[in-house]
Amino acid sequence: MTFNFTIEKSTEQGRLGTLVTPHGEVKTPAFIFCATKAAMKAVTPVQMCSANTQIILSNTYHLMLQPGGETVKKLGGLQKMTGWNGPMLTDSGGFQIFSLGHGSVASEIKGSRSNHRPKTLLSITEQGATFKSYIDGRTYFLTPEESICVQRNLGADLIVVLDECTPFHVDKNYTQESMRMSHRWALRSLNEWQKHDDGSQKLYGIIQGGVYPQLRQESCEFINDHDFFGIAVGGCLGASKDQMHDVVGFTMEMVRKDRPVHLLGIGGISDIFAGVAQGIDTFDCVHPTRLARHGGALVKPCNNPSPTREHINLRNSMYINDDQPIEPDCGCETCQWASKGYLHHLLKAQEMVACSLVSIHNIYFMNQLMQAIRDALADDTIDSCKKEWSLSSGRTNSSS
Amino acid sequence: MTFNFTIEKSTEQGRLGTLVTPHGEVKTPAFIFCATKAAMKAVTPVQMCSANTQIILSNTYHLMLQPGGETVKKLGGLQKMTGWNGPMLTDSGGFQIFSLGHGSVASEIKGSRSNHRPKTLLSITEQGATFKSYIDGRTYFLTPEESICVQRNLGADLIVVLDECTPFHVDKNYTQESMRMSHRWALRSLNEWQKHDDGSQKLYGIIQGGVYPQLRQESCEFINDHDFFGIAVGGCLGASKDQMHDVVGFTMEMVRKDRPVHLLGIGGISDIFAGVAQGIDTFDCVHPTRLARHGGALVKPCNNPSPTREHINLRNSMYINDDQPIEPDCGCETCQWASKGYLHHLLKAQEMVACSLVSIHNIYFMNQLMQAIRDALADDTIDSCKKEWSLSSGRTNSSS
Repeated sequence: MTFNFTIEKSTEQGRLGTLVTPHGEVKTPAFIFCATKAAMKAVTPVQMCSANTQIILSNTYHLMLQPGGETVKKLGGLQKMTGWNGPMLTDSGGFQIFSLGHGSVASEIKGSRSNHRPKTLLSITEQGATFKSYIDGRTYFLTPEESICVQRNLGADLIVVLDECTPFHVDKNYTQESMRMSHRWALRSLNEWQKHDDGSQKLYGIIQGGVYPQLRQESCEFINDHDFFGIAVGGCLGASKDQMHDVVGFTMEMVRKDRPVHLLGIGGISDIFAGVAQGIDTFDCVHPTRLARHGGALVKPCNNPSPTREHINLRNSMYINDDQPIEPDCGCETCQWASKGYLHHLLKAQEMVACSLVSIHNIYFMNQLMQAIRDALADDTIDSCKKEWSLSSGRTNSSS
Repeated sequence: MTFNFTIEKSTEQGRLGTLVTPHGEVKTPAFIFCATKAAMKAVTPVQMCSANTQIILSNTYHLMLQPGGETVKKLGGLQKMTGWNGPMLTDSGGFQIFSLGHGSVASEIKGSRSNHRPKTLLSITEQGATFKSYIDGRTYFLTPEESICVQRNLGADLIVVLDECTPFHVDKNYTQESMRMSHRWALRSLNEWQKHDDGSQKLYGIIQGGVYPQLRQESCEFINDHDFFGIAVGGCLGASKDQMHDVVGFTMEMVRKDRPVHLLGIGGISDIFAGVAQGIDTFDCVHPTRLARHGGALVKPCNNPSPTREHINLRNSMYINDDQPIEPDCGCETCQWASKGYLHHLLKAQEMVACSLVSIHNIYFMNQLMQAIRDALADDTIDSCKKEWSLSSGRTNSSS
């Protein structure tokens, strides 16, 4: 069996499943790490495996610009080329086109600081999106069909329809029009995928509708009714974590229960607990690895002197002479020997290996967190699991 | 036995030995990799071990400025702090003080391009050297005693006396005066080391004398006659590879034969074959790892389309679609799965992991080279070994 999704247990606490792909099994709930340009930043595939990773994703937007889908295909496809050889997902390119284009979607959704990159989106029409390459300014025209074609060349197991990702500031009318165009794009994606389906890839549809329950319902019905293997919850999820939990909550109530459901771009610890309880099967976010490159190490509350953040900042001078690992009870390669004092030194000295060592910890941490959640769902002990892994109260800050 | 050096075989082709340290054995001839700031750039200690590394070095100059010898001591000393736990050497700090100070010694000696860093050396007196930190401009005063004291805190197995490293353009008179001061500094280093000797570290003296046979003779006699565990060949080695081979050649004829001899800062493949034939036991150079970070992969002549360089440039567009590894007959982690096309993509995309993957290859390559040289010395087959590993004729370019 090359593809399959089975739900082994489903309760109000969340659901346990197995997602089978041609490149291996993924036990869900699972976290998908971002290997944006077909490489985990500062981490090798051997290190990804040692950190118990199940699945990674790459971004079609970046890879279509460099080195291009055709080149990836010539080099054996993503799994072989990257040396990962395990399950992979690619997104459609839409999120980056529109977030770089509007210059604000990602910031708004994730609550991070605004970015100051030049806007590269030139136009959106019924046919597709025209944008400039951030590398050389060359103009590209991406259609739903072209996104599927590029993703076919990239060769990931799980691929995603092209959608328009609307900024938060647009009104319900714009959101509705955009959603309906994304639905038409989803159908075009589905048709293009079906035309060349050789059993090696499966397609996810994306639920749009912004923060509006009525639109989310229309989008759920549309995606539920069409022949997508998996469902991704996308679009604008609101301006705050509370609103995001609301939007995901009422959306998930309307999503059919037999397909794997992915929550796009969310990876804070408390957000994952909330998402699991709402029935989400997979998550992805650059947060764990981006945080690591800035010196942030994810820690359980018992290893965290700060009651408001899910990580410690290894650049803090309090760690200069600290000869203890990030977490004494952690089984990752880094915590076996590297002290916080040494990591502090490496970060201050701008040594690249600091990024590797802290990333390895954060990746292992996320995989252990997901394993703990799966164990807790099996044993009906999610409350004590949450207490062990997640800050108990107050707003958390998962931005880097 | 905590320290020992035994010579198992000595011929005109070179010599085979074993250098025993409290942190393990080093089979010689050996290459010592540069972990300048107490970290290999972009490579973890686990990866260093997998690449068959025997010994690494760190630079006292960088570590005394950041994080400081006391902090390294508090974090367990270099071997524990870095997670390397194998044999280590530290230099005295002299080379960097004087090369950054003059702004040209390293460039001249190694034949690389001139650097444009600000000169930081403020003064050299009989007492020591005064220089400014490249990090924060703070003034430091380094004496021979202080260098030993810092190296004691760092805790490497093998440590080195402070010397003045003269630029190439100085005349014989200056070289002679400098050499004699370096000799006095060597005695002060030796005295300081002996005062606190607890059996955990051994001291190397450095032979000075520039390109002048008469001065090299005086320096050899001085170092031979004093109680140094090992001998390093330092100072200016000339302006060309041919002159360097000459200077090392006539120097080595005068060096006593019972001590391990290290050639400072030399690491080209042809230079290593020349040095081994002259009796050198250990080499060090940033070249293999610095080259890697710029996309240069060391290759045997059979895997090299260029007859003039010891490496291939993976940034070259000829590799865009190349699905073969750097060397098909290489056993390194990288060559097991990574194609030249993928490495080309990672380098163009400025992915940090490119530095890791190419560094791993170059480190493994150097260790295999040294193993091949040791095997060839044992079997008296150094000529065929040289033919397999080194370009047969013409000037080689080992600069990055």
